[in-house]
Amino acid sequence: MKNIKLTIEYDGTYFFGWQIQKNKRTIQGEIEKALKKIFQKNIHLIASGRTDRGVHALGQVANFKTDSTLPVNKVLNALNANLADDIAIVSTEEASKNFHAQYSVKSKTYRYTLFTRVVKSAQLKNFCYHYPYPLNLKLMKREAKNLLGRKNFKSFQASDSEHKEKNAVRTIKIFSVTRKGDFIYFDIEADGFLYKMVRNIVGTLLEIGRGRFKKGSIKHILLKKNRILAGTTAPAKGLCLLKVKY
Amino acid sequence: MKNIKLTIEYDGTYFFGWQIQKNKRTIQGEIEKALKKIFQKNIHLIASGRTDRGVHALGQVANFKTDSTLPVNKVLNALNANLADDIAIVSTEEASKNFHAQYSVKSKTYRYTLFTRVVKSAQLKNFCYHYPYPLNLKLMKREAKNLLGRKNFKSFQASDSEHKEKNAVRTIKIFSVTRKGDFIYFDIEADGFLYKMVRNIVGTLLEIGRGRFKKGSIKHILLKKNRILAGTTAPAKGLCLLKVKY
Repeated sequence: MKNIKLTIEYDGTYFFGWQIQKNKRTIQGEIEKALKKIFQKNIHLIASGRTDRGVHALGQVANFKTDSTLPVNKVLNALNANLADDIAIVSTEEASKNFHAQYSVKSKTYRYTLFTRVVKSAQLKNFCYHYPYPLNLKLMKREAKNLLGRKNFKSFQASDSEHKEKNAVRTIKIFSVTRKGDFIYFDIEADGFLYKMVRNIVGTLLEIGRGRFKKGSIKHILLKKNRILAGTTAPAKGLCLLKVKY
Repeated sequence: MKNIKLTIEYDGTYFFGWQIQKNKRTIQGEIEKALKKIFQKNIHLIASGRTDRGVHALGQVANFKTDSTLPVNKVLNALNANLADDIAIVSTEEASKNFHAQYSVKSKTYRYTLFTRVVKSAQLKNFCYHYPYPLNLKLMKREAKNLLGRKNFKSFQASDSEHKEKNAVRTIKIFSVTRKGDFIYFDIEADGFLYKMVRNIVGTLLEIGRGRFKKGSIKHILLKKNRILAGTTAPAKGLCLLKVKY
């Protein structure tokens, strides 16, 4: 039995997210369909985690087991030949038999992209959140420092009960906010993320940057462990899963 | 009578190019339709030059004349409100009465983008040419130097008679070839371009980079003034009009 690890890029615009759903186009669904064509049997794919509808990836990771003897480079070509052009299998490799794309994760890195020009982007409309308002970037950076380290992120977890996790403690290792021309990038590496955590954090930092939440808000919101205090969820299309470390 | 200058960004993927055509979605057609809605009369738009089907722009420039007293910033908002999200009017300004988007051009800058990773890009598929073959970049850069200056570019002009211009002399001011990660950018500034000139030059440099055309080819091809000697035309989707100078 071989354990095959896939690294996957996708443009999430025309998918209903990662997770397979009946009668909906999902990334997992499309790849499992291609795997069935190639291996002539049902194959279950495990991802590092789900991504929501509209969220993108440059380095999503997934694994599956097979007793086929097809070499991994042939699996790569066969998958890409059977997938639409908004999914690309970037690499395939044989992993150790204990490798599990979700449970073996050491850290994940997401990038959230804002586009700040007055007029929206015609070329990158599906890959950024158009936010043409003045932002106090210095204050945002300072506030973001309070997110670093091992903390309870319950206040930034999605409020819908389906996705709530009991343990909301996570460790954010890197949180950077960088302006480059008309873009602002939020780059976040953590050992794990709660449902909608990045988008809720970005939404909150935007309230701070616009002066609607005051200095010290991040500390206060974390302390209160209450979703109601954080900002609104930033839109999915600005979010991209860059990298998963094992 | 006011003369209004527009700077325009577009994702050319779903357009049949710039120039208005019956029953086809074109950039000129869409903007003239929006102008008609706003000013309640037919308005003719003049561009710096046409772009082909699939070619993009970040800084196309066009102008039109109107006797309306609507302030230019209102024209900006009204146009963007009446255009689909793959065209953005980046700015509007009042130009001198002699300004002509085509005849007043001093130079234009195009970028051609290659994507060289073995596996195609899922996110930028419409904005680059997938070219996963080994390239001798050093030789390409050296050969590209022979394109600089005032030359007859007849060999790089499209062969179809409709677009042939009698005078094929143009001046290339800048020609740079730069690798950045999986991308290679060709940035070209010239006082003017012949039809398909950039794409024919890029196609020729790729033949040189792959070793199919030998060192000295650019000089030879220019000298012979014969399209048949140059390489194939690189695909439209890798091309973007970055800037027009006046």
